[in-house]
Formats: sequence, structure tokens, C-alpha cells
Amino acid sequence: MRKNGIFMLFFLLSLMLTAGTKKISTVNDELSSWSNTKVKKEIISYINEITDKNSLYFIPEDERFAVFDNDGTLWAEKPVPEEMFIIYYAEKMVRKNPKLKNSMPFNKIKDFYENGKFVIKDRMLFDEIVGITHRGMTKDEFRKTAEEFFREVKYPKGDVPMSKIVYQPQLELMNYLRKNGFKVYICSGGETEFMRAISKEYYGIPEEQVIGSELVFEYDENNNTMTRNSKLYTDNNGKAKANNTLYRLGRPAVFAVGNVGSGGDIYMLRYSQASKYKSFQLLINHDDEKREFLYNEKNGISLKWAEKYNWNVVSMKDDWKQIFPGQVFSN
Amino acid sequence: MRKNGIFMLFFLLSLMLTAGTKKISTVNDELSSWSNTKVKKEIISYINEITDKNSLYFIPEDERFAVFDNDGTLWAEKPVPEEMFIIYYAEKMVRKNPKLKNSMPFNKIKDFYENGKFVIKDRMLFDEIVGITHRGMTKDEFRKTAEEFFREVKYPKGDVPMSKIVYQPQLELMNYLRKNGFKVYICSGGETEFMRAISKEYYGIPEEQVIGSELVFEYDENNNTMTRNSKLYTDNNGKAKANNTLYRLGRPAVFAVGNVGSGGDIYMLRYSQASKYKSFQLLINHDDEKREFLYNEKNGISLKWAEKYNWNVVSMKDDWKQIFPGQVFSN
Repeated sequence: MRKNGIFMLFFLLSLMLTAGTKKISTVNDELSSWSNTKVKKEIISYINEITDKNSLYFIPEDERFAVFDNDGTLWAEKPVPEEMFIIYYAEKMVRKNPKLKNSMPFNKIKDFYENGKFVIKDRMLFDEIVGITHRGMTKDEFRKTAEEFFREVKYPKGDVPMSKIVYQPQLELMNYLRKNGFKVYICSGGETEFMRAISKEYYGIPEEQVIGSELVFEYDENNNTMTRNSKLYTDNNGKAKANNTLYRLGRPAVFAVGNVGSGGDIYMLRYSQASKYKSFQLLINHDDEKREFLYNEKNGISLKWAEKYNWNVVSMKDDWKQIFPGQVFSN
Repeated sequence: MRKNGIFMLFFLLSLMLTAGTKKISTVNDELSSWSNTKVKKEIISYINEITDKNSLYFIPEDERFAVFDNDGTLWAEKPVPEEMFIIYYAEKMVRKNPKLKNSMPFNKIKDFYENGKFVIKDRMLFDEIVGITHRGMTKDEFRKTAEEFFREVKYPKGDVPMSKIVYQPQLELMNYLRKNGFKVYICSGGETEFMRAISKEYYGIPEEQVIGSELVFEYDENNNTMTRNSKLYTDNNGKAKANNTLYRLGRPAVFAVGNVGSGGDIYMLRYSQASKYKSFQLLINHDDEKREFLYNEKNGISLKWAEKYNWNVVSMKDDWKQIFPGQVFSN
């Protein structure tokens, strides 16, 4: 009897533990690359709160919008993939037409390498190459070139395909948000059409949910083509990220994610706090020299605003169990 | 036996007829305000074609985008509701602050009425009032005023609430498109925030799917407000409707609907023909003096392009059984 009683106790305990584990592991399954630290708990508790119809903070499903910066927030930015694309494309032009090799600015391409590493020392020269690689072609021509780049090129650190430099925890977070009724947008300084080449494949974000920098297009109704002009229509950095959120969504997003690096995301995160609903801000801090990169901002403004405005900061080192799909760059 | 044979024949015939009727009546239920003319058949046959997985012209669901102009395409435009709003708001300012009555441009408001009818004779004066009614306030303040307008004001012709000047056949068409996997957008010259005040309630179109003219907003991160500036960010008319379709959707829409009136929709309709998929264009012609209005364009460009580029033209008189919910303006 006593033996049986102990068995029963163990049986009940194991049932309780299984039930408990099950609940935790469901959560872990969805955000399994996130360590069980404060940030992960804050995310889950926010989502539980705003999706619960009986909560004071309930948000109707058609008001659930999330905006994510791209460079340094969804994928690595040392170097920035679009900057790699620009040099890749200029080099490709030289291969196709070797005469270019000795003319400006193509004769200077080699200056973008230092000990085999890609570095932009001369910003004006770089902008000249941006002009050549981004402008004057039709939308479809540019798209083809961007797709080629993503197929052909590997990321210098780790020598991996570009699809492997996205952050695994962010893929999980975006899926988790979508499962909870969110529409997830990119809001990045990158050029919109460049990001649209991979937004669906890499992030599950449809092209109409990409907000980025835009060139003016010239529309020719006879040939029915859109040609990329040399003027910028919008430079989606700084305050423009707040403005373009409003233009595109009609209201602030309630969930906003950016990163420490250029300070370019602070207005986007701040503007999400103008929502009439309870909002959530997440700032990614690149403090993991071993598994990714270690860098900061000169003036530290992003972290200052995080403290001032009560944003959640992700330490890549402590809060992310795994950084890349397949842990690609471990040094 | 013979009698039974005839009965059986009748029975089979009635079964076939019922089946046939059922099929047609389902279609009629969805587009019941459309007459059974060529245009309706073309719409249905297009939708059947592009939603059929075995068809050469199948379009994947996430590529099904429709753009609708607003003024004269989704609701009446004689007068244009936003122009009514502008005068309504200026009059309201005078009521609140009677001193304004004798100062420019408020002392000229009466010039916008001729025999009790609203007419814009002085475009420059009107633009001055646009400045006063559209600019300098925050996004939220403007929104409140627009919502007030839609609650308080009636449309001059028919003296009906503003929700009754929408075209019933278009409500059915938008629903029919949505049921077939389309995302339906407005793409109109109207100011985006003005349209957003009613897009969901009147048309079932969420605010993020409204493309319109936009003012520049000044973002103040301390108060977290967006203030409407005096500069235009985009004037969404003519070619801009093609460009803004590209900015917002990332590709041409496959289904585009505009109207004869200003010629402002021709580039939007034409650009939809740049899609890599089979596309459909619909141009609404205001030829129904009795139930709506009769008007045309000076140069007739919309109808010329419709012929040149093979667009479908809707005669409101012949192709629409009913124009308004409740047939409000019958003269």
C-alpha cells in the first residue's frame, strides 16, 4: 500500500511535470533559439496580453503590425549585403566589358579591398558606383541582377550563402508574431527593390510589406516600363522610418525592432510608442564577438534612447542561444 | 409507359434547368447589381480563368492585386466629397471663431455656391482653403475632423448620408474579388488620410491598402506626434498612380478600375498591363443622367486609350442594374 502510494505520488508528480514541461516546450518550440532570459519572457508576456480578449491591453487582429529593420536586425551587416552587391555588380560590368577597367570609377574598385576585406574608405567614390549599379535600368533588369547576386555570392565572414546570414531567433520571432495575427513588415534603409528580391524567400515577408529607400522611377506608357532614375524618392533612414511607417500603414506599428549600429532605427522605435495600443520595442545589441560581431555607436544614442523610453535590449551574446541557421560563423 | 416516359423527360429536364439556374444564380448573387451584359461576363470569365489551377492564365493567390480609383469609380464625384469637406471645414472654423468671417479667404466662401450648388470657380482661392483645412494639424486632429464630416454632412444630390453615394455594383465587385483571393487597394488622387477615415467602413478596405496623395509630415519625437506640413509628398494623379502602385505593391496590379472624367486613371490602368500575368482593366463611363450623372472628358482620352489598349468599358446606364444602395438619387 505504502509502496503503491509512493508510486502514485511519483505518477502524479510526473504527470504534473510533463504538463508543465509541455507548456514551456511549446513556447520553446516557437522561440527555441532565444535563451530563457528576461527579454524572451517580456515578448511572450506582451503577446499573451495583447491577444487575450479579456485583457485591458487587447489589440484587435487587424491592428497588429510589426516593423523590423533589416541590416543588423534581420541579417548581418558587416559588410552590408547591399554594399557587397554594388561592388559585385561593378566588377561584373568590367568582366562583360573589359575596356571599362581603366576608366573611372571602375579603375578604383580595388580600393574597396584591404587585406582581402571589403571596406568603404571613399564614400563619394562609392556613391558614384551606386549610381552606376542602381540607376538607369528598368525595374525588371535590376531585379534580375539582384537575384543573380543572391544566387552567386557568398558572405565573406563564414563564406556562406547569403541566406545563411539571417538571424535564426528573428525568423522564429516573425513566425511567432504571424501566428498571433501580426502583419510583419520590413522598414529599412536598404533599397526596396533590392530587399524585395529575397524578402519572401528569406523572411516570409511579401513584397508589398517591404518599406525601404526608393528611387524615382520614370514611367514609359508606350513600352510599359519603369526605369530607375538618379533621384531618390525617399531615403528611409532616421525620421523617414517613422514617416514611411505612417504612409504605408496609416498608423504606428505596435511592435518595432531595430539595432544598435548607426542610430538609424531610433525614430522608428520611438514612433511605435505613439500607438493608441500598448506597444513593444526591441533593440538588438551586437555584443557577440565570438558568434557574430562586436560593435557599437560613437554616440551610443540607441542605447540611451532604449533606457530613456523603456525599450527591451537584446544582448546577442546572452539572449540568443543560436544566431545563424547552422551556427555558421563561429570563430 | 409513354406517359411515364414523358414525366421522366420533364423530370430530367427540370433537374438540368435547376442545376443550370443554380449555377447562374450563384454568380448573380455575387454581382447582382450588374446587368447580364458583356462586361459582367468578361469579369466572371477572367476570374474563372486566373483562379483555375489548370488554366494557362492561373495567377498564384499572393499575386492577385486589384487597384480601384475612388472619386467617380467607387463613389459619386459631382461634387467630389473631399472638396465638400474643405468648404465644410472652413465654414466650421468661422462658426467657432466668427471674427474670421471678414478676413481672407473666409469672406469668399460664399463664392463657392451658385444657386445653392457647390462650384469651384476660383481654383487658387480654393487651394488657399485647402491649405487651411488640410495642413498644420496633427494626423489625429485631422482624422477627427474628417470623421466628423462623414457623420454630419449629406450629399447635395439626393440629400443622403455620404455612405449612400458609393456604387453598389463596385461593392459587389470588390467582395467578389476578395472571395477569389484578391487584395483590394484604393489608388486615388484623394488625400490618403481623408480616405482612410472611411475606407474600411464604406469599402472593406483596410487603411494600409489605401494609396493616395500625401502631405509631408513633421515628426516630433518628444511629443510623438506627426504634424501635416504644407508640402505635398506625392500627388497621386496621372503617372504617379502607376509609380505609387509599384512603390506600394512591388509589381503592377492585375486588376485595375478607373473612370472617365479627368483622364487621371489612364496610367494606372495602362500600368496594370505591364504585369507578367493576364490582367484586366475596367473603365467606368458616367452616361446615366437619370440615375447618376452624365459627363465626359474634353479630350476623351480615357475612352481613346480604352479602345487602343483593349480595356473593358462600363456603361453605368446599361451595365449596372442598380447604382446606389437603395437607388438614392433617382431624378
